[in-house]
Amino acid sequence: MFFHISPPDTALKTALQQKIDRKTKPQGALGQLERLALQAGLVQQSLEPQLRRPQMLVFAGDHGAAKAGVSAYPQEVTWQMVENFLAGGAAINVFCRAHGLELAVVDAGVAHDFAPRPGLLSAKIAPGTANYIEAPAMRAEQRDAALARGAEIVRTRADDTGCNLLGFGEMGIGNTASAALLAHVLTGVPLDACVGRGAGLDDAGLLRKRALLQRAVARAGLPAGGAAPLEALAEFGGFEMVMMAGAMLAGAEAGMLLLIDGFIVSAAALAAARLYPALTEYCVFCHRSAEPGHQAVLEALGAQPLLDLGLRLGEGTGAALAYPLLVSALAFLRDMASFESAHITDKSAVPSAAT
Amino acid sequence: MFFHISPPDTALKTALQQKIDRKTKPQGALGQLERLALQAGLVQQSLEPQLRRPQMLVFAGDHGAAKAGVSAYPQEVTWQMVENFLAGGAAINVFCRAHGLELAVVDAGVAHDFAPRPGLLSAKIAPGTANYIEAPAMRAEQRDAALARGAEIVRTRADDTGCNLLGFGEMGIGNTASAALLAHVLTGVPLDACVGRGAGLDDAGLLRKRALLQRAVARAGLPAGGAAPLEALAEFGGFEMVMMAGAMLAGAEAGMLLLIDGFIVSAAALAAARLYPALTEYCVFCHRSAEPGHQAVLEALGAQPLLDLGLRLGEGTGAALAYPLLVSALAFLRDMASFESAHITDKSAVPSAAT
Repeated sequence: MFFHISPPDTALKTALQQKIDRKTKPQGALGQLERLALQAGLVQQSLEPQLRRPQMLVFAGDHGAAKAGVSAYPQEVTWQMVENFLAGGAAINVFCRAHGLELAVVDAGVAHDFAPRPGLLSAKIAPGTANYIEAPAMRAEQRDAALARGAEIVRTRADDTGCNLLGFGEMGIGNTASAALLAHVLTGVPLDACVGRGAGLDDAGLLRKRALLQRAVARAGLPAGGAAPLEALAEFGGFEMVMMAGAMLAGAEAGMLLLIDGFIVSAAALAAARLYPALTEYCVFCHRSAEPGHQAVLEALGAQPLLDLGLRLGEGTGAALAYPLLVSALAFLRDMASFESAHITDKSAVPSAAT
Repeated sequence: MFFHISPPDTALKTALQQKIDRKTKPQGALGQLERLALQAGLVQQSLEPQLRRPQMLVFAGDHGAAKAGVSAYPQEVTWQMVENFLAGGAAINVFCRAHGLELAVVDAGVAHDFAPRPGLLSAKIAPGTANYIEAPAMRAEQRDAALARGAEIVRTRADDTGCNLLGFGEMGIGNTASAALLAHVLTGVPLDACVGRGAGLDDAGLLRKRALLQRAVARAGLPAGGAAPLEALAEFGGFEMVMMAGAMLAGAEAGMLLLIDGFIVSAAALAAARLYPALTEYCVFCHRSAEPGHQAVLEALGAQPLLDLGLRLGEGTGAALAYPLLVSALAFLRDMASFESAHITDKSAVPSAAT
């Protein structure tokens, strides 16, 4: 699986920064929105970046380890929540409708047979991964197939709709455990600091989750902080995480902006960025999750997320909630007056005695 | 000037919290959005709170002290920016258009004669305040007139449009200095810790601003941390700040939600809340400003703002950028499925061995 991902050409950077600085506001006064506007301009190689057919993709998959007790919820909740997405009743549906994002659900590997429906993309690798406490979660061919199908979904989407912005979300009972394992072996942060309560474990459940994941780490024997990303994905990944990694890489290759949600999506992005470091130039990190492992992943990615609202739901909800900030950033870059056009006295034009 | 402001009746709290907890998500997983949904339900006394005719009010006024050198920009920028608002070219225009907020500009005391126009509310107390380094910024009658006119604007708005959500913004060269003085005398935090660079002072300018404001504090002789709010407003306020305080109080009296922007708007809210502590129950604190004095004000208000994006523009931009989060909170409360309606296995219904 090969991608061609270059960092955006920075020739436009000076012109973009000048355009931002001539808007009727003190320089830098729009904070992170100015950074976003600059990033979007560079990614799209345009002084007038625009969002076309923004698309949220929610990747769903089951985890063999879920049955061993790494989650507060039973595995059947994965397919039930996919049905909830398809019926329009989940948080991600509500937020996508509120802010004008299209939503599609990708069955990357749910342990359930879904009837075909609009909004459901069938890309199942297998009905759930193997239990990584006892064996690798997936075989190398399965991993590579998941990467390829993720890429294929994005390429088709770009061709069919002209979409240039992807949001990433996920559903998979047990997948904070998977993300914690990836965070540990990819960053070297101690496992216990990467493991949180997920969807709602109590104290005893958290201790059990930690003990189970220690066994998985011991079994796999990957070097903490030095694991090869493809190997880490096969050992611990969910199909939903591997497939979204492929989708992200294809999105970056096509010059799209990528809205990265919380812990699970960020862990997939980290694995993908270890393969192709230029990926991060295309990523907008949307929120800081309440899951402790997310901090380790964000630090490894050098990411400063936009929101910090104590969210820990997943589904892409943090990405959908941050999306209006990106809309705002592009709107100010496009529509705000400049000092010249609005005939406003600029500070730099005023003699220093008067400032 | 008397208002009747009671905290919202909490009889509905249990029913609202149950409604939030039965949505298809782990309890608490939507973080601060759940707090927002609860607050909106209580303020509106409804299990289905809704936003009607959301209105951004930008209060503008000039400051006598601006000519003494407390700002990096000359005073004329206040009226020039008001013209920019009226022409639709400022950041607040762009964000209000992007997110569906109506915008009106209130001339509370700009040192300029504006031609009447749609979107401009003329409520001028005087063409700028007096220079508080030498004398109180305004007389008691002016302060009371500003409070009354602010209240009147909101009451008319509520009657005419049915509006139930107000956003607050401001424009006034020199008004971070005014807010710093209010923050100091109302909270007791040392003046130097309340004074920042405003729209863009350099190091020398910051030292000059601090020295000038020390003189204003010494002249007024109010007890740091123990100043009476009405006295503090007359000594240091801008007309725009006093008028918005009146508008906030009338908004709370009418049961509206109030979007509080950054440092200047928060300082006005603090003065108003010292008069009527129940005001804060109606306030949504929208962002944490890069101005250092804002921290002192937020702490005194017990406020946890939604956004922290390094914004320092004012105009109400932080409020307009946070508004989609409130929209999202109300949308999830109204439209998300419950565990029962979506037929999803709830954790609490699962035997503990399987969790």
